[in-house]
Amino acid sequence: MKRADPEYSGAKMMRVNLARLKQDLEELGAIGRTPEGGVSRPSWSDADMAARRWLMERISAAGMEARLDAAGNIFGRWQAGSPVVLVGSHIDSVPNGGMFDGALGVLAGLECLRRIKEEGVRLHHPLELVAFTDEEGAFGGFFGSYAFTGALKGEEIPQFRDSKGLRILDAMARCGMDATQAPGAYRNPKEIRAYVELHIEQGPVLEARRIPIGVVEAIVGIRRYGVTFRGRADHAGTTPMKDRKNALLGAADLVLQGHNLVLNEGTSASRVTVGILQLKPGVANIVPAEAYLTYELRERSPEILRSLAEKSRSLTAKVASVWGLEAPIETILEIDPVPMAEEVKAAIEAAAEELGYRHHRLPAMAGHDAQVVGRVAKAGMVFVPSQNGRSHSPLEFTTDEDVERGANVLLLTLLKLAAEGRGE
Amino acid sequence: MKRADPEYSGAKMMRVNLARLKQDLEELGAIGRTPEGGVSRPSWSDADMAARRWLMERISAAGMEARLDAAGNIFGRWQAGSPVVLVGSHIDSVPNGGMFDGALGVLAGLECLRRIKEEGVRLHHPLELVAFTDEEGAFGGFFGSYAFTGALKGEEIPQFRDSKGLRILDAMARCGMDATQAPGAYRNPKEIRAYVELHIEQGPVLEARRIPIGVVEAIVGIRRYGVTFRGRADHAGTTPMKDRKNALLGAADLVLQGHNLVLNEGTSASRVTVGILQLKPGVANIVPAEAYLTYELRERSPEILRSLAEKSRSLTAKVASVWGLEAPIETILEIDPVPMAEEVKAAIEAAAEELGYRHHRLPAMAGHDAQVVGRVAKAGMVFVPSQNGRSHSPLEFTTDEDVERGANVLLLTLLKLAAEGRGE
Repeated sequence: MKRADPEYSGAKMMRVNLARLKQDLEELGAIGRTPEGGVSRPSWSDADMAARRWLMERISAAGMEARLDAAGNIFGRWQAGSPVVLVGSHIDSVPNGGMFDGALGVLAGLECLRRIKEEGVRLHHPLELVAFTDEEGAFGGFFGSYAFTGALKGEEIPQFRDSKGLRILDAMARCGMDATQAPGAYRNPKEIRAYVELHIEQGPVLEARRIPIGVVEAIVGIRRYGVTFRGRADHAGTTPMKDRKNALLGAADLVLQGHNLVLNEGTSASRVTVGILQLKPGVANIVPAEAYLTYELRERSPEILRSLAEKSRSLTAKVASVWGLEAPIETILEIDPVPMAEEVKAAIEAAAEELGYRHHRLPAMAGHDAQVVGRVAKAGMVFVPSQNGRSHSPLEFTTDEDVERGANVLLLTLLKLAAEGRGE
Repeated sequence: MKRADPEYSGAKMMRVNLARLKQDLEELGAIGRTPEGGVSRPSWSDADMAARRWLMERISAAGMEARLDAAGNIFGRWQAGSPVVLVGSHIDSVPNGGMFDGALGVLAGLECLRRIKEEGVRLHHPLELVAFTDEEGAFGGFFGSYAFTGALKGEEIPQFRDSKGLRILDAMARCGMDATQAPGAYRNPKEIRAYVELHIEQGPVLEARRIPIGVVEAIVGIRRYGVTFRGRADHAGTTPMKDRKNALLGAADLVLQGHNLVLNEGTSASRVTVGILQLKPGVANIVPAEAYLTYELRERSPEILRSLAEKSRSLTAKVASVWGLEAPIETILEIDPVPMAEEVKAAIEAAAEELGYRHHRLPAMAGHDAQVVGRVAKAGMVFVPSQNGRSHSPLEFTTDEDVERGANVLLLTLLKLAAEGRGE
């Protein structure tokens, strides 16, 4: 009966299979597991490659064709045609991160497609699962979604390197891929009906308010700079303190003053983080000649983000001058805040209502592929609570109940978006 | 005639062969040369091993037996017996350092022994050339002179590691040596008549005063600590600034406040240097959970050094508490200021007078093997000018004239010390 009925209404009582989804989460979480119980799957690492193979096998096992595009993005599809409703996230992780970040969105998406396929529901729009390459930034971040949306510039690819200096060209070549071909992963936005991403909140809001479903209003903008303070290598004993050009003093000054700048002039949604700081030559008895650091700003408002970025650049120049250093700045990442599509937000809210779950609109403070796709197509995100707001850590955790609620909201949202709208 | 005359007086007009000494300096300087024109020969590196082989061949080529002790110290000797007058320094270098630091003392010492041997001068005390292992600190510093003087504790050896975590046990094993045997390099101080080390000043004093010969009065004390600020890894977007335990903020605060502490409460001879700072996990979008740094103090006065060290420890604890971090401190190096022996200083001054060179007493702001040997035996140092006071850099330079003057002062100093004194 169900197989013969192509009606959307016939799928209304459909729910995900939590046991199967959990099994997938556990299996993927075991790939790249660290001694601390976290997950290390930076893009194009051995663990990432193992995870890719595993995911493609899971897609095939569900009776769908697993496809890899030129940027390494992995796809699975239910029904042919265009435009598609996309669902997904990423399966790479930060070093020693958690097992939910990214993985939940991909695996819940896979479970949604499996359930819809099992029920034989015919939709007005095809559904497509996607796992984007290098969301977390081993080689800069958003490589897959940039390529997919046409934002990846071919001439920049040879410059992408990981923190150890490995070029993405070499990392992908090792995996049998040619990074210079990645822009070929471009998909015309007209072929995208909508993109929906389920993700852990990675923050404290939903847990504190005891609300199971977050509806992302907008995704925070990011400005990430690389600053190289350049001074002079001098002997740590013989060179008087006042005669030195100590690159670390400039770096330390920027770290502290940048922190105060953002605390004093930003909003509650403003962040500044120096996550990388490397000294050269990096020897105990030599004054540092060079201090390289990443300086990352995040903020929801485009105006405030621009203002903080400008003030941070002036501050860097001022600090460099005070300590007698040079401090060239390179832009690593420049992502404007991106509002989510009203139609997708409404579909998520309707799905939550149908399931009887409380929901709440909030900003996403982390970068997500949804913000890259959201620049060219209708995008939305479903958040589920993160225990203690923790993520990018082995302590990242979301309960089974919250995973199930989020996946079911995702399922109903996909059914709504695939049943209605543009192209009908 | 000279060969038949064993009298010290017959050697009075003896001078070093500058061309031969320069040739040696150039040859050794080419081992481990960097693209920037500097020298990288950290202890037990391939370059250091090549330099060791080269030095032992040069000692043999001069007709002396080249000997390696259990700590990897290299010796050459003129005449048997005891106590000996030791001359030398070290041939390891900091990464991308210069070609004079250490090498000059060893090669000038070799040249002195060659000249004395060539002239067939018989001395009351034998002369011995020494090149000490790891003066610069690839594995902590002064490994060879500590072992030689009995200051190396066998149980600590397994803990010595380089900045990449390589244990000295493994580094030496790779070179066919057993590091645990190093304490066997101990020499009874009664067998040491004196130790003399020629070295570049590595500072601006002699050049500024246009004085060719420095007579080191005392060698600066060093306190080197390893501080590990420990906080928590958090997502750089989702974790509000005030909820973080950012290890880098503590480290940056200590860098700046430690700098001010030493400027305000130290003397013109006080130094503080943070030469190593390493973050974990060291990723742009994760708040640093750990910041390890080396904090090195130098000062000539034992009292002021002790006071600066105590205040730095309190400051570290205060800073850690302000930022909500832990900050355990380990002691890496603890060297008290060491005065040079009056008898050796007088011999150097007499040698300079004999040669008609102006001389000047000054403190040594860098650590030297002479300060380790000086704790158990009479030690002294001859300084020659450093151009622009630069060292530990490819720009390290001393003119031929200054090299020659220093080497001749060393030669006459050795002759005086070997001709007279204890054991006559």
